[in-house]
Amino acid sequence: MSYTLGELAEHVSGTVQGDASVIIESVATLQNANNKQISFLTNPSYRKQLADTQAGAVIIHPAEADNSPGNVLISDNPYAAYAKIAALLSPAPEYSAGIDKTAVIAETAEVSNKASIAAHVVIEDDVEIADGVRIGPGCVIQRGVKISANTELVANVTIAHDCIIGANVLIHPGVVIGADGFGQAMDNGRWIKVPQLGAVQIGDDVEIGANTTIDRGAIEDTIIGENVKLDNQIQVAHNVIIGAHTAIAGATAIAGSTKIGKHCRIGGMVGIVGHLEICDNVTVTAKSLVSGSIRKAGVYSAGTPLELNKQWRKNTIRFKQLDDMARRLNLLQKQLSGNNEPGEEK
Amino acid sequence: MSYTLGELAEHVSGTVQGDASVIIESVATLQNANNKQISFLTNPSYRKQLADTQAGAVIIHPAEADNSPGNVLISDNPYAAYAKIAALLSPAPEYSAGIDKTAVIAETAEVSNKASIAAHVVIEDDVEIADGVRIGPGCVIQRGVKISANTELVANVTIAHDCIIGANVLIHPGVVIGADGFGQAMDNGRWIKVPQLGAVQIGDDVEIGANTTIDRGAIEDTIIGENVKLDNQIQVAHNVIIGAHTAIAGATAIAGSTKIGKHCRIGGMVGIVGHLEICDNVTVTAKSLVSGSIRKAGVYSAGTPLELNKQWRKNTIRFKQLDDMARRLNLLQKQLSGNNEPGEEK
Amino acid sequence: MSYTLGELAEHVSGTVQGDASVIIESVATLQNANNKQISFLTNPSYRKQLADTQAGAVIIHPAEADNSPGNVLISDNPYAAYAKIAALLSPAPEYSAGIDKTAVIAETAEVSNKASIAAHVVIEDDVEIADGVRIGPGCVIQRGVKISANTELVANVTIAHDCIIGANVLIHPGVVIGADGFGQAMDNGRWIKVPQLGAVQIGDDVEIGANTTIDRGAIEDTIIGENVKLDNQIQVAHNVIIGAHTAIAGATAIAGSTKIGKHCRIGGMVGIVGHLEICDNVTVTAKSLVSGSIRKAGVYSAGTPLELNKQWRKNTIRFKQLDDMARRLNLLQKQLSGNNEPGEEK
Repeated sequence: MSYTLGELAEHVSGTVQGDASVIIESVATLQNANNKQISFLTNPSYRKQLADTQAGAVIIHPAEADNSPGNVLISDNPYAAYAKIAALLSPAPEYSAGIDKTAVIAETAEVSNKASIAAHVVIEDDVEIADGVRIGPGCVIQRGVKISANTELVANVTIAHDCIIGANVLIHPGVVIGADGFGQAMDNGRWIKVPQLGAVQIGDDVEIGANTTIDRGAIEDTIIGENVKLDNQIQVAHNVIIGAHTAIAGATAIAGSTKIGKHCRIGGMVGIVGHLEICDNVTVTAKSLVSGSIRKAGVYSAGTPLELNKQWRKNTIRFKQLDDMARRLNLLQKQLSGNNEPGEEK
Repeated sequence: MSYTLGELAEHVSGTVQGDASVIIESVATLQNANNKQISFLTNPSYRKQLADTQAGAVIIHPAEADNSPGNVLISDNPYAAYAKIAALLSPAPEYSAGIDKTAVIAETAEVSNKASIAAHVVIEDDVEIADGVRIGPGCVIQRGVKISANTELVANVTIAHDCIIGANVLIHPGVVIGADGFGQAMDNGRWIKVPQLGAVQIGDDVEIGANTTIDRGAIEDTIIGENVKLDNQIQVAHNVIIGAHTAIAGATAIAGSTKIGKHCRIGGMVGIVGHLEICDNVTVTAKSLVSGSIRKAGVYSAGTPLELNKQWRKNTIRFKQLDDMARRLNLLQKQLSGNNEPGEEK
Repeated sequence: MSYTLGELAEHVSGTVQGDASVIIESVATLQNANNKQISFLTNPSYRKQLADTQAGAVIIHPAEADNSPGNVLISDNPYAAYAKIAALLSPAPEYSAGIDKTAVIAETAEVSNKASIAAHVVIEDDVEIADGVRIGPGCVIQRGVKISANTELVANVTIAHDCIIGANVLIHPGVVIGADGFGQAMDNGRWIKVPQLGAVQIGDDVEIGANTTIDRGAIEDTIIGENVKLDNQIQVAHNVIIGAHTAIAGATAIAGSTKIGKHCRIGGMVGIVGHLEICDNVTVTAKSLVSGSIRKAGVYSAGTPLELNKQWRKNTIRFKQLDDMARRLNLLQKQLSGNNEPGEEK
């Protein structure tokens, strides 16, 4: 598998500066590339590696063209261009269609003869598996699930009953889709279970990271929009709705019935409480807690900075006095400024 | 499966206002219910939907009776009444007893002939499985585990050796019970393993959410009390004890040897450090860190509010100056107030 | 399995105070030990139990020798001594070599005849499994994986293609190693996948807790150093490098390309953002966010203290005014102190 730099540029609608005939066989980092490899620069902090790289070519933004000594592929979106070239040079392996003899498949399931079902898979009644689907080893697909074309479940994935999975979805190992939402009612001092009667709908072109969990809805469905990208170990509670093209980083948890807009970017370890609405194009930085609805696009944050423990102990104790400090500051300011306001009182 | 509204009211010891003979077949949300469906109102923010609902009946609290135009089922606990009615109208499927031929069961295991063992299950030596237990596909039950009557492991659950699981427990996919606790001793610059010799005891009527992990004890057992409800992706470390009727929301982590009381409600993404005691009836709100014991019932919180990133950057930098600010404020106050105290000094 | 106290002392290079001939059969807590059991004291808060213990012997630090009425085994490192004695008295079960008949093993895989492969395991092409390896039930080992001697995968573990696992590694249930890193490029309003072409390398003598996930690298490998200890539900993103002898507590998440030094101790629920460097011997306390590189060994913290919700609401609102408060405090101070500085301005 090799291409000339010119062919790669054509593949991504970019332009070449330097030798378009150089042969590229694979991708590599700036630091470790050899002359048959192509690299890329998107993070300015790696710019100093650009001068020293041995790469056969580097994918760059037009703004970097003057600083680039060797062969470059110029693209307005170097990272996307890199992604396309990496996919071209390192295609994912193809799975041959067919059903492993150790898979256990219910008679009422409809499995396309163009699907690939691996060892120790379990497929229950009334499941529908479309063309080109790949169900990896150890996956459990409960009754009534529908999986559209070219979706892959890598291994040890569980899809609970009646969930709907779109096309071209990629689901990594350990993911659980459609487990019961956390519905408990207190009844005379004991919790009783609230049946979780909805399901989960996953749109097309979604990716779901390892060990992420998406609960089924209480009455209606939990919905993951088209082209949503979820990292590992994310918890999506019942009846959450996530809009198309939203990306969520690892270990984030979203409580029940919250609705997240389109094109949002949620950082890692963010918590989002239940029954909120977050509008389109919201960015939340890592480890923030979102405890109210967000109605305006923008970048939001919460949290306190890392410090040496010794100093932090002093500051964190003062946090408990913050309201008192504010009141005293206001009073002092009033005392001092008959007609002389150094700041406004809150 | 259908009932009259009167029959449903009787089932939950409620009363009917309106037509008790209306036929109800299933449950639905206020917004989407039709005239053969019953809905409920517990969250006041949905009250405006009550006037417009097409539901055949709505389960409400007595306080809402005057505002309810249609048929209503009045209950002092509408959410619990809803839970019971939903369970009546949408019963969980029954599994037929028997052992799938692909299950691998040790000769010394005692599996009730009234239990249901699904495909690709592994049951090791000396395991005891009681009547009515359902072990779903792909579960691994290690040696010496005991599972009491009517407990269900949905799929791909792992129970490590010698753990004890109560009756009527529901364990969702990906749960791991009884993995080794995190016991490491530093020995001449290397970590060596501290054997984890205890097990896990799970009480009756517990529910454990998808991908939650409960570690085995170091010497004695980790104990989950009766009717405890754990959401998804919770981490329970070795020798934690959780009291009866406590509910914990998703992605919370509890460090080793901490003891949580009865009837506590722990929010999502809460962290609880090790070797603490939390008394009964404590509520901790989402994403708080509990770093000391709690000896008084009440609602506890920690954390800072979400802000626009631009403003947050300014405030979070000031957090590092908080102790200094407090000292300076105290001094200013002293300077100003010979005999004139606007607030007390801390 | 029993030893005299003298034999145990010799095993851990400790000394006996009291009767070296007492027979010890097992370990127990100070509180519950009987006279054939040995216990240990490392946490001073349990010191009051030392006087009352019925233990046959107690492992203690020399500093406790004068306070110890019964038989004691004196060691400079009582916890490590305990770990070694517990391992001696309660050895892990041995697995007999061989391949369960339900395991599905590719013809091109090389599995040592001294390895133990349990039921329903899947081993794909070109995998290499060394002597003494134990692959527990339900594990999936994708193509090209290499696992060195005496490593154990307990159950339902997934190792993705081409990852390298060292010797004497212990991997708990639900762990996923080598799932794709979270690489997404925005391209004309849609996310496209960035192929994840690296793998994961796990060093010797590593332990990985239940449901932890370690993603494969984007171009080069994610690397977990020798003797690293990872607790449950940790998320390690692509191209993270963790230095030898670092221990990380449960539910911590580390974003991409961050490099953590040797002998670090990272608390539970810590978040570490991407592309950082953390030097050797850094401790980070529970639930902190590390958002910048750490270049100096020490103990670091972030976060705010738990309070009664009522008081916290007041303080957390003030956090949003903190920058304004600081500015007003500075102004007041300037106003007051022509030549009279109660503190320095920031």
